[in-house]
Amino acid sequence: MTPRVSRRGLFGLAGAGAALAGAGVAAGYGLDAATSPGPSATVEFRGPHQAGIVTPAQDRLHFVALDLTSTDRGAVRDLLQRWTIAAERMTSGRETAEGGAIPANANAAPADTGEALGLPAASLSLTFGVGPSLFTRLGLDDRRPAPLADLPRFQGDRLDPARSGGDLCLQACADDPQVAVHAVRNLVRDGFGVTEVRWSQLGFGRTSSTSTGQATPRNLFGFKDGTNNLKAEEPELLDEHVWVGDEGPDWLRGGSYLVARRIRMHIETWDRSSLDEQQLIVGRDKGEGAPLTGTAEFDPADLAAIGPGGPVIPADAHIRLASAEANGGVRMLRRGYNFVDGSDGRGHLDAGLFFVAFVRDPQRQFVPMQRALARHDAMSEYLEHTGSALFAVPPGLTGPDEFWGAGLLGR
Amino acid sequence: MTPRVSRRGLFGLAGAGAALAGAGVAAGYGLDAATSPGPSATVEFRGPHQAGIVTPAQDRLHFVALDLTSTDRGAVRDLLQRWTIAAERMTSGRETAEGGAIPANANAAPADTGEALGLPAASLSLTFGVGPSLFTRLGLDDRRPAPLADLPRFQGDRLDPARSGGDLCLQACADDPQVAVHAVRNLVRDGFGVTEVRWSQLGFGRTSSTSTGQATPRNLFGFKDGTNNLKAEEPELLDEHVWVGDEGPDWLRGGSYLVARRIRMHIETWDRSSLDEQQLIVGRDKGEGAPLTGTAEFDPADLAAIGPGGPVIPADAHIRLASAEANGGVRMLRRGYNFVDGSDGRGHLDAGLFFVAFVRDPQRQFVPMQRALARHDAMSEYLEHTGSALFAVPPGLTGPDEFWGAGLLGR
Repeated sequence: MTPRVSRRGLFGLAGAGAALAGAGVAAGYGLDAATSPGPSATVEFRGPHQAGIVTPAQDRLHFVALDLTSTDRGAVRDLLQRWTIAAERMTSGRETAEGGAIPANANAAPADTGEALGLPAASLSLTFGVGPSLFTRLGLDDRRPAPLADLPRFQGDRLDPARSGGDLCLQACADDPQVAVHAVRNLVRDGFGVTEVRWSQLGFGRTSSTSTGQATPRNLFGFKDGTNNLKAEEPELLDEHVWVGDEGPDWLRGGSYLVARRIRMHIETWDRSSLDEQQLIVGRDKGEGAPLTGTAEFDPADLAAIGPGGPVIPADAHIRLASAEANGGVRMLRRGYNFVDGSDGRGHLDAGLFFVAFVRDPQRQFVPMQRALARHDAMSEYLEHTGSALFAVPPGLTGPDEFWGAGLLGR
Repeated sequence: MTPRVSRRGLFGLAGAGAALAGAGVAAGYGLDAATSPGPSATVEFRGPHQAGIVTPAQDRLHFVALDLTSTDRGAVRDLLQRWTIAAERMTSGRETAEGGAIPANANAAPADTGEALGLPAASLSLTFGVGPSLFTRLGLDDRRPAPLADLPRFQGDRLDPARSGGDLCLQACADDPQVAVHAVRNLVRDGFGVTEVRWSQLGFGRTSSTSTGQATPRNLFGFKDGTNNLKAEEPELLDEHVWVGDEGPDWLRGGSYLVARRIRMHIETWDRSSLDEQQLIVGRDKGEGAPLTGTAEFDPADLAAIGPGGPVIPADAHIRLASAEANGGVRMLRRGYNFVDGSDGRGHLDAGLFFVAFVRDPQRQFVPMQRALARHDAMSEYLEHTGSALFAVPPGLTGPDEFWGAGLLGR
């Protein structure tokens, strides 16, 4: 009685269109938008770098941090091998045919939980990382790279330990949240007895572009966010700022570091400030997203420009303090998401930005920039950092037998 | 530098295609899927019934319950009038042009918070309701209809007061979560001084079809959900089961009641049960969603069929206990959503179903059915009701000067 079309119809095209080294994107849209069963866009799982970093940012996120409940390295390695196989299958969109939601033996528990049956891959990417605490837990402290150290406390931090840290992380991005949630859930399930969920975060809208083919999205302050983000089409800048080079251990070369910060935004207070005030705090205009010294979004910000009352872009403006110029040339690849986690019990929505950035060295890039922002950024008044975590993200898998963490834990 | 295409590209077509009395849907897709700026599908705001009830269920939800912080009826009425104007503007997709995100006077706080600037309407619907406590708060107890009484406690309920009740509710549904969140946020903002957020819930995937044009989605148990739901194309059944008739007060005739239940699903336990066990608990097969007495999803369930071991559809199967036959002919229009709210602090995801149903009389329809389910449903073992609320949903607005709640509070 019901036509057998995808229940979601067509997804955003944001993830399609660019074929990138290490993050190739294949699109499979029907010819006619109105009758297509929906896009079956897939993100290539294997490549020199993990997917989900320079992959054109998908629209939805489910991020989970896990703790080990076992200190048995062999058990952890076996899990990572199983995770790799499952992740590759899920990102390929072969879920329906091979996922095991309907086992041949009905006396067995289904291998897959089933809620993604019939859904396309929706550009799913899965990205894996290891936290500093994993090394201690597994007796591998001598293998922990120096930059993978707990982040310092920043001025104004109100971190909730239950939303911070983690031995492992999985970042699932997709254009359909059900696909992202399904992937995390099934990996979490497979980890039973070896890992447990420490915290998890859903993000409903991306706040950065990671490809020149994407329009710049808006954060919950209503401003375009990530205009000056590093882009997939700038491989030399990625080598300089994102990918770990010869300075890193073998198992991390070609990988990156993932900094996650859960930033509560006090949107009610923000909303009471005037347009002028908001624009001076950000350093850009709200409509176009142009720097206050320009007229178009991608006009370079002239930080030296002086107006009648002082610098046109104020000394405490967000884009000045976060600029490469103010930070010794340092840049980051941001890949954050807006969130709303219900209400705060005091009459307000619990909303904000789940900040995710990929950097070559968090101690040299994220830490000094965040220190400056926490102290001087006019926007800080409206922000509260409530969660924090750091993970090392190994390089991508190239050979068919490689699996997540093999370089660290052995085969 | 960046093409000015919608950052979301194409949305699901689920909401388009059917033009329904009181919930007409207009689609405006580009001819070429790959270059379209994205669908500008809009849901008609005015009509005999409020939108968001029989409107083909959109993919995403943001639901908020609010409490009055003022007992001044005039102030509440003024707010409802402002809300109506804002809701009509936002659902029409006129946000960019007329929303006030960029005020002419930059010394003023923007009238709109801006994060939906440039986004299409994405089939946004906004539905408004009033809870039993509103009547007490405003000294209107004599106007409260008898069915609008607090729901009784059901066996196994573990209700969190911070996720239950509310003087008012707003249900925002859209195919883009940023559009739904933006709408709720701006209405909440406009209510400052009169209302405050009591609780709010995001839903990422619909769990019911409300139109024969929609495929049946899956819940987090991996089963198709809502196969036998009431559909927009059955106006006589809607009159019988959903719309308040002559039995109700003037201000509610043509309206409905909204029952909301936050149902945590213990997915880890469920996932350990065998396919057979799961199918016997539900009463349907997992792949097709056919009743155990049939082979296709929409085959009618034969509750009388007896197999070698007893009834083919067990006595404690969910679809038997929830059937019209087992409930004196009672039916409901369900419109629920899957949710994941992070983790539970004990190593598991906090995931489940945010159940929303529209009924003509909650005391005669929802209460007896839920009582039976709570006592006998084999599925109950895997469920925990953690939130509960009931609202009366006034009829739709037809005249140009009508506003939400005018029938109850006067003009």
